[in-house]
Amino acid sequence: MLLLIPGPVQTRPEVRACMAEDIAPWDEDFRAEYAAMRPRITAIAGGVEGTHVSLPLPGCGHMIIEAAIRTFVPAGGKLLVVRNGGYAERLARLAQEAGRVVVALDGPDNVPMAPDILARALAENPDCTHVALVVSETGTGIINDPAVLGPVIRAAGRRMICDAVSGFGAIPFRLADHAECDVVVFTSNKCLEGLPGFGFAVAPVARLEACRGQAGSWVMDLVDVYDHALKNGWGSFRFTPAVQALRAFGKAMEIYEAEGGQPARLARYSRNRDVLYEGVQALGLTPYVAREHQGPIIVNVYQPSDPNWDLERFQRGMKARGVILSDFSATKVPTMRIGCIGAIGENDLRFALAQMDAVLAEMGVGRRAAA
Amino acid sequence: MLLLIPGPVQTRPEVRACMAEDIAPWDEDFRAEYAAMRPRITAIAGGVEGTHVSLPLPGCGHMIIEAAIRTFVPAGGKLLVVRNGGYAERLARLAQEAGRVVVALDGPDNVPMAPDILARALAENPDCTHVALVVSETGTGIINDPAVLGPVIRAAGRRMICDAVSGFGAIPFRLADHAECDVVVFTSNKCLEGLPGFGFAVAPVARLEACRGQAGSWVMDLVDVYDHALKNGWGSFRFTPAVQALRAFGKAMEIYEAEGGQPARLARYSRNRDVLYEGVQALGLTPYVAREHQGPIIVNVYQPSDPNWDLERFQRGMKARGVILSDFSATKVPTMRIGCIGAIGENDLRFALAQMDAVLAEMGVGRRAAA
Repeated sequence: MLLLIPGPVQTRPEVRACMAEDIAPWDEDFRAEYAAMRPRITAIAGGVEGTHVSLPLPGCGHMIIEAAIRTFVPAGGKLLVVRNGGYAERLARLAQEAGRVVVALDGPDNVPMAPDILARALAENPDCTHVALVVSETGTGIINDPAVLGPVIRAAGRRMICDAVSGFGAIPFRLADHAECDVVVFTSNKCLEGLPGFGFAVAPVARLEACRGQAGSWVMDLVDVYDHALKNGWGSFRFTPAVQALRAFGKAMEIYEAEGGQPARLARYSRNRDVLYEGVQALGLTPYVAREHQGPIIVNVYQPSDPNWDLERFQRGMKARGVILSDFSATKVPTMRIGCIGAIGENDLRFALAQMDAVLAEMGVGRRAAA
Repeated sequence: MLLLIPGPVQTRPEVRACMAEDIAPWDEDFRAEYAAMRPRITAIAGGVEGTHVSLPLPGCGHMIIEAAIRTFVPAGGKLLVVRNGGYAERLARLAQEAGRVVVALDGPDNVPMAPDILARALAENPDCTHVALVVSETGTGIINDPAVLGPVIRAAGRRMICDAVSGFGAIPFRLADHAECDVVVFTSNKCLEGLPGFGFAVAPVARLEACRGQAGSWVMDLVDVYDHALKNGWGSFRFTPAVQALRAFGKAMEIYEAEGGQPARLARYSRNRDVLYEGVQALGLTPYVAREHQGPIIVNVYQPSDPNWDLERFQRGMKARGVILSDFSATKVPTMRIGCIGAIGENDLRFALAQMDAVLAEMGVGRRAAA
């Protein structure tokens, strides 16, 4: 089976093999293994050891995002959320339900947020101490680039919460270049090609020290993750971790580094994206995002307007041919998402495109452009 | 390696094998697999389908405990915590940091909480709407039996939050017999012999309906887990799960049921405990908990008073001989914990005891009784 859902992604057999082991997380050998992973995680985020630290938390991406918001924005504090997609909406909900006040900066979901619009919103909202943004919007595939929006936040004297979940490791990001950044978060199972089970935050030590006691949750307090490591060592855990997913993540990082790190991964995914984007157009389908705004993580495509079209039937047909696609639309108009990420290459995408062509033909879907 | 840490436990190869697969959580085949697991989880908790529901949450045991407290006790609400052990202290901290008011009912950590003491404390604290208790105290191995304490809580008109994490599946518990119970929580990696990555809550539907909007966290809101299932089906997820751990848990439940369920598991662990308890005594060591209060999950033993004793050296010696033990004390006086749980039998414990004897001799530890 070829997984082209936008996560969890297809992984390599060596990574999956790490999962099938009983591991004692507090044993000194695993402690050393885990302690050695932490500076590597910091480095992948472009952090500087000593200035920045990596803070793993067992659980899902939404959990590490909520933890980041709770840790850095006090209860009742106000944050501006760049809300130009379905996952940005989710981030806003996470903040709101945690008792933080959200000022939503809405924008069309098919273009990145423009820096001048963000600058104006910040000028109009001087009491927003933080800006939260989703880098790679999992709903559509657009990229809100921290290299473009970060300087706006910095110039306005605000702090950034960077949800890098779906693009981390492929989209360039150097925490050391973002003095405005309180925290960048990501997970084990997207562009770093591990298995699901862990969220990661990387944050400046000075900001953690300044934000002690704000989280209103022991489990989700990233400062406590830091304090626990200071007291018990960098290989120690507060709670029983999804330890197999962590070991698999270590193996995935090895492969990532051997492949050439972020530039190599971005290059591979960009080729995947190009093959996919041009391929769906060649099939008569219409991508949701214009070429110049199309990120390398997810390609979103309008569902065909043909009356024979049915997403569920299409998804089943693809699965019968060995390709698993997402079976729901993450936009207001009906679209479907195809992932460019995971341990896959352009030939896998070509294979998937050939199957798409065949299934569309089987279904009798002639009119393939959007309504 | 034989894992005798009190979790994550030793698992069977068929269970571990489920981890080494790429799985699309939202695919209809996995949805069906997951949906079929949920009533089985409810049944293992002694719940009645329709009246009770199971609510899985990716993450660790502490997380599902915090979620349970948040969901059923409103912010600023008051709960009495039966605090007679290290993990009960942790539960109290989880509640406090989540903004709930804790009244701690402290008790010695080597005997179960007595029902009359609890009854008196409830009479003295009429504003405590809830009682939270740890069934199998992971710090010492004592059991606070819900069959004994539940009726006291019910008689006082209060609600129970039952942290069954380390003993669930072995210690008898039938949710249907506990009208006072708001929620029972447990994890994938203890007596049900799965791998870590998931927490589970089982709760009465009527209580979920009555507690909407209290959690102060989207991720940790068990009512939202329920509402999401109502809307999207029992096989659907809110967020990307640790899906491999979930499939492995399904396999672990199959094995559990085939073995004979709770009575069989309790019998096997009780034999393990008996062999271990008598075995450490035969080695000249002193168990921390008196025989009549010793639960079947963890045996805690005083560290020897001999000057040659060193827990770290002992743990390393045991590991060199193929047995991993916990390397820290979870009580105020120095003790060490040995797990009776996991996919192990009495011969494994006999093997471990023989290695303990050899390592103690190698270390020159003669005086083995507690100081």
